[in-house]
Amino acid sequence: MFDKLVIIGVGLIGGSVALIARHAGLARRIVGVGCDGDAMPDALRLGVIDAVEPTATAVRNADCVFLAMPVGQMTEVMRAIAPHLPAHAVVTDVGSTKGDIVAAARAHMGNALPRFVPGHPIAGAEKSGVLAARSDLFKGKNVVLTPVAETSAAATQSIAEFWQACGARVSEMPHQTHDLVFATVSHLPHLLAFALVEEIANRPDADLMFGFAASGFRDFSRIAGSSPEMWRDICLANRPAMLQALSAYQRQLARIHDLIDTGRGDELASIFEHARTARITWARTHNKTDGNT
Amino acid sequence: MFDKLVIIGVGLIGGSVALIARHAGLARRIVGVGCDGDAMPDALRLGVIDAVEPTATAVRNADCVFLAMPVGQMTEVMRAIAPHLPAHAVVTDVGSTKGDIVAAARAHMGNALPRFVPGHPIAGAEKSGVLAARSDLFKGKNVVLTPVAETSAAATQSIAEFWQACGARVSEMPHQTHDLVFATVSHLPHLLAFALVEEIANRPDADLMFGFAASGFRDFSRIAGSSPEMWRDICLANRPAMLQALSAYQRQLARIHDLIDTGRGDELASIFEHARTARITWARTHNKTDGNT
Repeated sequence: MFDKLVIIGVGLIGGSVALIARHAGLARRIVGVGCDGDAMPDALRLGVIDAVEPTATAVRNADCVFLAMPVGQMTEVMRAIAPHLPAHAVVTDVGSTKGDIVAAARAHMGNALPRFVPGHPIAGAEKSGVLAARSDLFKGKNVVLTPVAETSAAATQSIAEFWQACGARVSEMPHQTHDLVFATVSHLPHLLAFALVEEIANRPDADLMFGFAASGFRDFSRIAGSSPEMWRDICLANRPAMLQALSAYQRQLARIHDLIDTGRGDELASIFEHARTARITWARTHNKTDGNT
Repeated sequence: MFDKLVIIGVGLIGGSVALIARHAGLARRIVGVGCDGDAMPDALRLGVIDAVEPTATAVRNADCVFLAMPVGQMTEVMRAIAPHLPAHAVVTDVGSTKGDIVAAARAHMGNALPRFVPGHPIAGAEKSGVLAARSDLFKGKNVVLTPVAETSAAATQSIAEFWQACGARVSEMPHQTHDLVFATVSHLPHLLAFALVEEIANRPDADLMFGFAASGFRDFSRIAGSSPEMWRDICLANRPAMLQALSAYQRQLARIHDLIDTGRGDELASIFEHARTARITWARTHNKTDGNT
């Protein structure tokens, strides 16, 4: 139990952290720091937070600080809180890339660096804002922590226990591993979906093409409806891992292009068969049910 | 109304054609020609067809012949039926690629070529076999006909009216257009989904990667669970259009790779924004509701 939990950025994620912290008795007092001024009255009215305070005031006697504002404000917020954090306070973030956050923390967290635990809850990006916050948002979901050499084991344990109390499954891994994993299984598919829709949309016969797109296209391209700004930021924040994952995929496509070009049907079928088995095994192992088509 | 409708290959598509033909009174007598011997007793028992006959006997007094067997048997079946077709019989197929079917028809349909109408009903590939056949399979679905210069207008009209009576929306276009449209909106996404799953499955850390794959990956990769043999055949049958669509996509990826590499965030966001708008417009225009995530 934290005596004072401070949430900087009370949107979907920050608001849900606040709701579950209250619900599960993880914090005595929850204070919000606004990044989007308009949302704070909602957060107060809904009882998501107990009070709104300016950054320095909020963190001065905080026990735990969640950085849940847009990642683009990370440097500025770290600079603003570092001089005011008490010596025992732990700090964590919820950014979906970690190498850039670690770099920012090393540059701007000063003496508080050992008590900063880089984190990534894998939950909900379809809706946003505090009105979408839910106390069960993290239930059964993965949270990845990427402590670095400087991070104190006690700080990591404290944040891990907080997330476990929220019902999440907590893993630890190096930030480089985290960034490549998510570049590959999340960021890359988003980029590939955007790229296909863009390729079709730019064609002179786009209307004809879209007119015959069916359920396969629908599911493949769903994530191309995601926020352009968020995905631009993720692509750039996770640049090294994105380029690594994208290059590997481009090599795979070049290989398949060559197999089609030279009519090597057996090798093509064996790739498809291997992929199909892996997809079916994944869906069964991780209990992912495909929707009706 | 056809007096004798012959279905060669009584599986999901052929069986559904038979069911709706009977249901809507489009044929007096429906005869099946077996390609997969085991399915014919089911087709007879279910009343999908009235009789099973050998190829030559079946087509000798046919009014309409549906080629609904696997596309790999097209050449052989065309050769087998061409000498026996009566002068008035119309013939159509249900293959999902059309350039290769047109080439096969020109080579093997002989004098019957003007009465062969290349067709592609866009319906159901998830299940297969006559047990999955349904009389509403084509209701509201697109059927594309790709008549060539040699095709008689009367034959095309006869097949178009048949499909309209099945509740389908019938379009006509050149086979080259058909093949590029479906390479782009259907075949390419399948290939891209297979390629991503294959790329991950071949990594030494595949288990870790798959362990963090979530709903975005799930929907993107659903079609990687499709039949490897079917998609190998489609890739090869539609080779010129597939290579054209894949190359265009590869250029799009190379462009995006470059934008990430050089940190051109504005251009990246503008691609994502343009794609997002197109995706949302498509889903609204074509009434495609995304599943819950």
